[in-house]
Amino acid sequence: MSLSIVRFAEPNQSARWGVLHEQRVTPLAIPCETTAALLAVGVPALREAAAGQPSVPLAGLTLLSPVTRDGKVMCQGANYRQHMIDSGVDPDAKRFNMFFTKSSASIHDPVGAIVRPRHVTLLDYEVELTLVLGQRTSSAVTVTPANLHEFVAGICIGNDVSARCVQIPQMQFHKGKSYRTFCPLGPVLCLLEKDDMPLLDDLRLSLSVNGQVRQNDSTRNLVFKPAETLTEFSQIADFNPGDVLMTGTPSGCALGLPSPAVVRATALLPDPVRFSLFLKAQQRRPQYLKDGDVVEVRIVSANGRLDLGVQRHTIVGEN
Amino acid sequence: MSLSIVRFAEPNQSARWGVLHEQRVTPLAIPCETTAALLAVGVPALREAAAGQPSVPLAGLTLLSPVTRDGKVMCQGANYRQHMIDSGVDPDAKRFNMFFTKSSASIHDPVGAIVRPRHVTLLDYEVELTLVLGQRTSSAVTVTPANLHEFVAGICIGNDVSARCVQIPQMQFHKGKSYRTFCPLGPVLCLLEKDDMPLLDDLRLSLSVNGQVRQNDSTRNLVFKPAETLTEFSQIADFNPGDVLMTGTPSGCALGLPSPAVVRATALLPDPVRFSLFLKAQQRRPQYLKDGDVVEVRIVSANGRLDLGVQRHTIVGEN
Repeated sequence: MSLSIVRFAEPNQSARWGVLHEQRVTPLAIPCETTAALLAVGVPALREAAAGQPSVPLAGLTLLSPVTRDGKVMCQGANYRQHMIDSGVDPDAKRFNMFFTKSSASIHDPVGAIVRPRHVTLLDYEVELTLVLGQRTSSAVTVTPANLHEFVAGICIGNDVSARCVQIPQMQFHKGKSYRTFCPLGPVLCLLEKDDMPLLDDLRLSLSVNGQVRQNDSTRNLVFKPAETLTEFSQIADFNPGDVLMTGTPSGCALGLPSPAVVRATALLPDPVRFSLFLKAQQRRPQYLKDGDVVEVRIVSANGRLDLGVQRHTIVGEN
Repeated sequence: MSLSIVRFAEPNQSARWGVLHEQRVTPLAIPCETTAALLAVGVPALREAAAGQPSVPLAGLTLLSPVTRDGKVMCQGANYRQHMIDSGVDPDAKRFNMFFTKSSASIHDPVGAIVRPRHVTLLDYEVELTLVLGQRTSSAVTVTPANLHEFVAGICIGNDVSARCVQIPQMQFHKGKSYRTFCPLGPVLCLLEKDDMPLLDDLRLSLSVNGQVRQNDSTRNLVFKPAETLTEFSQIADFNPGDVLMTGTPSGCALGLPSPAVVRATALLPDPVRFSLFLKAQQRRPQYLKDGDVVEVRIVSANGRLDLGVQRHTIVGEN
């Protein structure tokens, strides 16, 4: 059975971990500095540490990312059926699984400000189911639905914040997605046991801006599933406990891909001209995040058993 | 004055560090498990540890990467003048600095085998000057030629081995460049002091395959220099001692970019068709690495003062 963990700040103290149950948090007397150290304690010992201890209301806590910055952030692109169809790609063809990385420096708390760097004019959002890994690997491994629990320790909400004005014209996923505060994680790190794994296939993701729903989809529509993705990613990365895999975002981002007619009409232009037209077209789209906008992100299981909490951020321009 | 360090293996022992001088190595009695720990010792103490100690011939040692896998690998693309011109880009326009990452799992020893994964048909090489960072950062910093020595602890040879059949058709730098053994570093980690920094602008890089020179250029032709690159990279990454920055490769890779006429003729084809044509055209190029090929890589300063040694690898197909 799953266990919900949060990490929070107290005035003049180090960050603390707690067990979340029915909107109350039981602080744990365990001195873990990193997510890897917390995972090493294990679910039974964490449950035991919380048993019979006093709890405080969740609402009064300053929540922090339950994933510490010593881990790495592995990502998938274009991994939901409708998102692929919108991009002119046939999801059933499953041509390839798109991988990239965000910097660990971009990892951010689940509440507060997302900082728009001064030069960024096209700021976008992407709700993503985020897997928190629990296994160390040093060679390629074969992950299946049957052994997935050995590799995935838990899950949390992720928002893959993206500067489209950098990512697209500079053709660089890593730079456009790695500015500080661009990877809010949490609030809940939901630790999973073997029997919880089937729930990964039926999670409901939603993201709203100023109360208006922009993204709303289910992990049922993931094209490359967690097990096959970890199998391929293990060919190129060593996993460590506390690393995360962000599994891609559904349709509904601010980014508007050009129609096939526009792609044809502009295909022969030099890159700088084509990208200048791209920027102008995107700047007309009101969906891009503006300073002061409030972004809320939720992930819950269809049966209501898992609830990863709510991320809430305000967009703030860099000073 | 610079200090040349190597890391080597001895039968049934942990890896050891040594000071290299005139083809002889003085093993150091310091138990540093990571490059970060070695850098923390500092050049004066390393010199002192080596003083008066017995030395052994370099030639008899099994050399290891002087950069351990706990560091991260930051990279620049398309950063030499001729390479940009070959790609149809004006180097003087300096439109943007292209960043990506390789996985730490790809870090590899400076001698031995580069393993071609079974599915990789277009294996390429890229000699790169590799900066080894020495400073911890947690926010954007301004690096200049005057304070560069505070951020760069040393340099080594890097080979940014690339599976073009993955990188180009899947539009993924990270995946195509991160397979294990795809990032050989060393053999020499040349630790630099403030006065050595100007030498970074006049290093001669060369790479040969089976004795035939394929790449040969000078860091004088780097478009985005180390100081401005670190300044921008610090906007998206926290630096840690032992992290590396690979500064891009000169022209001469196996990859043959299509002519403007071919780009025009194929621009309107669907992606899978265009990439299939790309693969067929590339497969006709004899420059791609084949099993059994021997790759040798060297970097020396124009004045002969710095010599980063020789990387030597044989290409071996995965079993």
